Amino acid sequence: MEMELPVSDRILMAHGSGGKLAHELIAKGVLPALSNPLLDRLDDAAVFEVSGRLAFTTDTYVVNPIFFPGGDIGRLAVCGTVNDLSMTGAVPLYLSLAFVIEEGLSQDELGMVVSSVRQAAAEAGVQVVTGDTKVVNRGSVDKIFVNTGGVGLVPEAVEISGSKAQPGDKVIVSGTLGDHGIAVLSQREGLTFGTELQSDCAPLNRLVAEMIEVSPRIHCLRDPTRGGLATTLNELAAQSRVSIRIYEERLPVRDEVRAACDMLGFDPLYVANEGKLVAIVPPDDAEAVLDKMRRNRYARDAAIIGEVGEASPGRVVMKTRLGASRIVDMLVGDPLPRIC
Amino acid sequence: MEMELPVSDRILMAHGSGGKLAHELIAKGVLPALSNPLLDRLDDAAVFEVSGRLAFTTDTYVVNPIFFPGGDIGRLAVCGTVNDLSMTGAVPLYLSLAFVIEEGLSQDELGMVVSSVRQAAAEAGVQVVTGDTKVVNRGSVDKIFVNTGGVGLVPEAVEISGSKAQPGDKVIVSGTLGDHGIAVLSQREGLTFGTELQSDCAPLNRLVAEMIEVSPRIHCLRDPTRGGLATTLNELAAQSRVSIRIYEERLPVRDEVRAACDMLGFDPLYVANEGKLVAIVPPDDAEAVLDKMRRNRYARDAAIIGEVGEASPGRVVMKTRLGASRIVDMLVGDPLPRIC
Repeated sequence: MEMELPVSDRILMAHGSGGKLAHELIAKGVLPALSNPLLDRLDDAAVFEVSGRLAFTTDTYVVNPIFFPGGDIGRLAVCGTVNDLSMTGAVPLYLSLAFVIEEGLSQDELGMVVSSVRQAAAEAGVQVVTGDTKVVNRGSVDKIFVNTGGVGLVPEAVEISGSKAQPGDKVIVSGTLGDHGIAVLSQREGLTFGTELQSDCAPLNRLVAEMIEVSPRIHCLRDPTRGGLATTLNELAAQSRVSIRIYEERLPVRDEVRAACDMLGFDPLYVANEGKLVAIVPPDDAEAVLDKMRRNRYARDAAIIGEVGEASPGRVVMKTRLGASRIVDMLVGDPLPRIC
Repeated sequence: MEMELPVSDRILMAHGSGGKLAHELIAKGVLPALSNPLLDRLDDAAVFEVSGRLAFTTDTYVVNPIFFPGGDIGRLAVCGTVNDLSMTGAVPLYLSLAFVIEEGLSQDELGMVVSSVRQAAAEAGVQVVTGDTKVVNRGSVDKIFVNTGGVGLVPEAVEISGSKAQPGDKVIVSGTLGDHGIAVLSQREGLTFGTELQSDCAPLNRLVAEMIEVSPRIHCLRDPTRGGLATTLNELAAQSRVSIRIYEERLPVRDEVRAACDMLGFDPLYVANEGKLVAIVPPDDAEAVLDKMRRNRYARDAAIIGEVGEASPGRVVMKTRLGASRIVDMLVGDPLPRIC
């Protein structure tokens, strides 16, 4: 009693049923691009040998629109989770990938997202080993949301945490601020700012490995995503119970991003990045780490932007171009929703 | 320059910003219930020592309604991921937890979900060690979706996979079929079928540990969720390249579920379960495993429902009450969307 399967170039509710169409969607739409021995087993969980300090993280991506200059939700999901692992110093190994798809999304769009996942995973040297696909009725989700989890191994002797900043440490940022947020916003709102701005969305695991090679004593690493650099520095200052001083004139910001922010009333300090990191490093190692970073394609504009202090724990202060000191608070409200 | 935060008993877009309200939501709404040393560090990833064969899995839960008799989306998310780990024989250790929340969800509802996560995690003996919270505008997601990932360790000598069924093996199911699907559907559609039917949503890791103690040679374990028992048996038959024969009269089904299925035109074989497992076990071990299972509160109605054969690999056949043989195909279409 073979039943005929509906043919459609759109995702149907039945593609999420766990039944025949669901298996077909996975077998034809997802597995060929991501195939590896662990994923291909299709058991309820992937099983592999590990030994050491495991890093484990998760993030759901709800970016709107799902395709934007410089990336899409697939690349974003892989890079975001690779980066979260990297910020503990871990070498990322394996990812999980879970889609929630709105009925009616085209198979082509899903295919493009899966293809981006494949490319970003290949660039980062990680494999997707386990996954899940749900389909929900129209209006229950906006197009597609993607969750990625990840595991990686932290090399011996590396002890990186948001709580380890020390007075005297230098604060390094790996490149220009706000590119991702402004690129996504421009696409969403149909704005243009001269040359087309690209999201900085990138996997930073190799950059981190190079930095650790130069200085295994790096104290903190964090990627300034939602809430931007300002929010990340506030988190680090609070977790480490230190103050942080940064210098406005040292902050790398693209002209297009500055212009867009001026026009729209945003501050690049609060705009999301998806391929940048902040490092807090012992002062003796700062220049060597910076030198090494600038040789990586994802950190050509790296700069030492400030230092860690002792007074007023939890406070972040910026010395402005005019020489004044301004308190840099955490983001309040959400001027840029669904940016990641 | 302290800014005043808006006060609301509803989740606002700003709660997902990565900024101040987001930190407050996590600090007050999530952390107190789930607190543990790994989660409390609030780094980008949790880091812990492991050594051995790691199982890693993910699932997103989109059940509608989010509260149903016998559980809610929080309990479902924990049990589902604990069970996926358990189906490899792994002892579940740590979970990730990622919320996508619709603007306007009440803080009370979120609190109830988080509280269910806490209770289910405590029952299963696992800890939530890393997480993520996104808030999206009204209409971009239906109330709340929850992704849970999980890691666990597979004991030495345990080799469980969907591909290991052997001709002669016995097929055991741990209890009544279709309780979860019918309970959720009843709640959603406002139907009642005599006494209130409860979802079977439960963590099965302790049951699995007890089963492995009796028979470390268990070949396959799988939880028959979306697509029900029929779909799971088809998956196992295909992965192992064997046939499976089951007997209708041996299938445990509650009277209320049978009545509901008769009325609504469903077949309990295809209705989702969230606290049941199928085990395929060498024939010599089947009775001992069954005995042990029946002493666990989540497997009192366990039964040997069939056996594995050689002919027609991939085929599942049911001997009906009337003595006829019926091919049991995989689910086609999706009669019960958003059941998990």
